[in-house]
Amino acid sequence: MKIIRVYINKKITNGFIELDQSQTHYVKNVMRLNIGDNFNIFNENDGEWIVELLELNKKISKVKTLKEIGFKDKPSDIWILFAPVKKLRVDFIAQKITELGARVIWPVITERTQYKSIKESKILSNAIEAAEQCGLTFIPKVNKIENLEYILDNWDHFDSERTLIFCDEKCENNPKKQLESIKKINKSNKWAILIGPEGGFSDKEREKINRIKNLSIISLGPRILRSDTAIVSSLSLFHSTIGDWV
Amino acid sequence: MKIIRVYINKKITNGFIELDQSQTHYVKNVMRLNIGDNFNIFNENDGEWIVELLELNKKISKVKTLKEIGFKDKPSDIWILFAPVKKLRVDFIAQKITELGARVIWPVITERTQYKSIKESKILSNAIEAAEQCGLTFIPKVNKIENLEYILDNWDHFDSERTLIFCDEKCENNPKKQLESIKKINKSNKWAILIGPEGGFSDKEREKINRIKNLSIISLGPRILRSDTAIVSSLSLFHSTIGDWV
Repeated sequence: MKIIRVYINKKITNGFIELDQSQTHYVKNVMRLNIGDNFNIFNENDGEWIVELLELNKKISKVKTLKEIGFKDKPSDIWILFAPVKKLRVDFIAQKITELGARVIWPVITERTQYKSIKESKILSNAIEAAEQCGLTFIPKVNKIENLEYILDNWDHFDSERTLIFCDEKCENNPKKQLESIKKINKSNKWAILIGPEGGFSDKEREKINRIKNLSIISLGPRILRSDTAIVSSLSLFHSTIGDWV
Repeated sequence: MKIIRVYINKKITNGFIELDQSQTHYVKNVMRLNIGDNFNIFNENDGEWIVELLELNKKISKVKTLKEIGFKDKPSDIWILFAPVKKLRVDFIAQKITELGARVIWPVITERTQYKSIKESKILSNAIEAAEQCGLTFIPKVNKIENLEYILDNWDHFDSERTLIFCDEKCENNPKKQLESIKKINKSNKWAILIGPEGGFSDKEREKINRIKNLSIISLGPRILRSDTAIVSSLSLFHSTIGDWV
């Protein structure tokens, strides 16, 4: 049987913990747990714990910790910057990034970005859902949506040592070889992937991207991928050449 | 502006072509084209053509070919065998496989497969939609859903030279290195990826998989991926080490 895991957005310590209304709804109405049942709670700071359901009221419930399980490994230090497409796709992207492992999810507005009404809280709740289902204890940080130009102009301010991996549909190299070679010269082991919108980047944006000092440009094959596919693809490539799968 | 592309499931030759009811509905009501407008039609046998809309009736319409554009490259000879999870996920999987490039999509029933009411026609229509949107002319073949045990027992009968890449969550190797080494010894350059259901494979299934002569077992990292993520990840890894992205 699959273990029920609930993300707790407050400190978990040995003893008794109150669940809030939405968590109570989840254990009561979705998972149909009863007093005395065991399940797991977790967060990124306190790890995972086995708990027992002690009280179950309409709006709040209470659990008792039984055992500390600990942490799953934190993913490699990789950020994902992407131009959001559609609501459903953004939900999906947040889930996949969490599953595959990244530290930061950063929606960016580019010149050709169509969909700008991003809710960062929705991205986060999708990331939490993926972490709950996939047995993870780490939740990526969701950055506030920002103009790509602003980010590029201030890249050195955000992190001058971080290498930007730019997935460029106009590029035709072998991405695996490219990533392997950049890995050898990157001392900081801090990375970021940039995925564009449908319609690609403008000339002005390309120019600014090319000005980034620590830059690696890779191809994602001969077929143009939708942005959600490109994110999963590039992150898989990253992890298998540089990140956690090596 | 994005080019409108319509898949035509009959022979395309220079001259006049009738569109059926669903294609007519698409150009008329979805894309809102008018008499005289140009768009593209394609299929895997006759490639892509620019056409002009000549007649537009309630149920059928007629186009005239203007120019033959030709074919996009056929993807590498890779099949994807996967245990379907949920309806929406299967739709998504069909789209992603087509985008990333594969020859055959093969849903398989394993011991722990929950979702068995697969419609192969639905998989195909999702593959066609992805090909239309991503500028491809190749549509993967969709095999009839089949028991995994039957496939494994008859693997040599289906294709004795084809190497099966088994994505095993219990495996801990470096998938990139593993694929690179198997590439050197595979003479036929024919491949298949096998992705399991949530819950994994049974011992009996594992035993049968291990009996396949041309077998490569790879890890997809330290985090357990959902099956749709695993398909996109493994196919990206394949293409970047063995397939079309090399």
